[in-house]
Amino acid sequence: MTVLILTSAEDVTADMVVDRLAAMDVQVLRVDPAGFPQQVTLTARYASGTLTGRVTAGHRTADLREIRSIWVRRPGAPGSGGQVQPGWVAVESDHAWYGTLRALPGVRWMNHPEATAACRYKMRQLVLAESAGFTVPATVFTTVPADARGFADDHGPLVCKSVSGRAPNDPPLALPTTPVPGDADFAPVAAAPTCLQTRIDKQADVRVTVVGSDIFCARTDDAATDRAGHREVDWRYADPRSVRWRATHVPSHIRPKIDAFMNATGLAYGAFDFAVAEDGTWYFLECNTSGQFGFIELATGLPVSQSIADWLAAG
Amino acid sequence: MTVLILTSAEDVTADMVVDRLAAMDVQVLRVDPAGFPQQVTLTARYASGTLTGRVTAGHRTADLREIRSIWVRRPGAPGSGGQVQPGWVAVESDHAWYGTLRALPGVRWMNHPEATAACRYKMRQLVLAESAGFTVPATVFTTVPADARGFADDHGPLVCKSVSGRAPNDPPLALPTTPVPGDADFAPVAAAPTCLQTRIDKQADVRVTVVGSDIFCARTDDAATDRAGHREVDWRYADPRSVRWRATHVPSHIRPKIDAFMNATGLAYGAFDFAVAEDGTWYFLECNTSGQFGFIELATGLPVSQSIADWLAAG
Repeated sequence: MTVLILTSAEDVTADMVVDRLAAMDVQVLRVDPAGFPQQVTLTARYASGTLTGRVTAGHRTADLREIRSIWVRRPGAPGSGGQVQPGWVAVESDHAWYGTLRALPGVRWMNHPEATAACRYKMRQLVLAESAGFTVPATVFTTVPADARGFADDHGPLVCKSVSGRAPNDPPLALPTTPVPGDADFAPVAAAPTCLQTRIDKQADVRVTVVGSDIFCARTDDAATDRAGHREVDWRYADPRSVRWRATHVPSHIRPKIDAFMNATGLAYGAFDFAVAEDGTWYFLECNTSGQFGFIELATGLPVSQSIADWLAAG
Repeated sequence: MTVLILTSAEDVTADMVVDRLAAMDVQVLRVDPAGFPQQVTLTARYASGTLTGRVTAGHRTADLREIRSIWVRRPGAPGSGGQVQPGWVAVESDHAWYGTLRALPGVRWMNHPEATAACRYKMRQLVLAESAGFTVPATVFTTVPADARGFADDHGPLVCKSVSGRAPNDPPLALPTTPVPGDADFAPVAAAPTCLQTRIDKQADVRVTVVGSDIFCARTDDAATDRAGHREVDWRYADPRSVRWRATHVPSHIRPKIDAFMNATGLAYGAFDFAVAEDGTWYFLECNTSGQFGFIELATGLPVSQSIADWLAAG
């Protein structure tokens, strides 16, 4: 069997899993689809109901029938290195690449593109989360300044966050979650949809990393501070020295909700962010289908990369 | 109830359905998401497990709770009209727009974005089609010249077609299905993935348009010719005067296969292309999830637009 790992060459977090798989003697083909078709080749032949062929990257080859698991980490877009008719090559390459992989029978995906797509949209996620039993903060998406003001009056104080939930630096203009002053001028929301959410006064941030049926829970109770010394709403932007993660157990009332969410979405991997309010309520903030786990493993020793390797090797 | 129609202003085929819905006195909001957030506004508020808000386009407004059906025809990309930070506005707008619509409870979609996505990739489609019982031509995607030659030796004579199955003029450089000479030089397949398929010697082309449980079948037995007077492989590029469609019945052995394919994919609408071989075998070529139907209705009188209007109105 071969584990196919789709990610960029710079992805050092993937190296943690590749090392575990190597130690387990599992064959791995690590590929960045951005190199297709220049550095990566593909042949997929469908005849008489059977799909055969192979993927080649440099000197390494995987027979399509040997691929039992696919880990979609942080891949580049297929065909993105083309010089001639780049738009056309990108569309054709995306279809050839993912069309082939999605046609492979009996492969386990972390995560399947359809599960990722279904989970990609924050408003849908919040509805799914509430259906799974989680408490979610009141949230609005709007391009209408008067509606933003009305929401602030009903549900303030607020924070403002990116609608798409993009990670910082991807693109670099992504916003950290930011407190909204009570007298904010909402006129600019007409320029682009804006996500406003009730601000949770929190005692802790929790990151729950789910790998198949394994759950890894890390918590930081520190009052992370920004550069001006104010309490930071968004730990991703805080001084890293002020955010200390420690391993902890998932409360018994949270575990079945996580299971319900994972089942409803079909995800094999998810990184959940919760805000624990002063009264102890866990607020679901988001589930990131390709959230980082390296910093949690390094800080807490929780064996996330081994769990991912085990899951992929069980394909 | 309101039917939400997502399509461009130029889409005259959508007008056929809008007219039917108007005659049925059904409220319609027709919107091109490309105009969001400049000409189209949105507020979606989620609190205490309830999603409320509205979409406004010009002077027309739809309450989110009134939207019972969504027809995804040929919409522009949300946020594509932005001048300031256009990449960022496009991502945020896509998430706000489709995140909201996908979060609406109990809405029927033609087609749901997840069904469209699952059906988008040709190789996956062929596997699904064969599982549904259809006969499909031997097909290869490859970027390896020697593999293209090997496939030609085993399965020629061949045609070459676009991997992505894009319609002509979208983009304009899309390829018609083209016969491949027996002595073809396959070196250029290294530049972009290429789809090669066994050429079917056909007596007829068939277009089956499926709307919910309604099936409309049209057939052309004409030997469509290209401008040089040669028999045309791809009727989309033939002189339209040489392609005469007539309504016909779906053979009894094909109908259950169509039902199986629609059930497996979750599609509400599909436009199937079949090649009928000289020996009478129906070869599945593709199912286009947003295939045109106006030309079929105009040529044959088959009531496709009324069927779509009925399906949407039943939401």
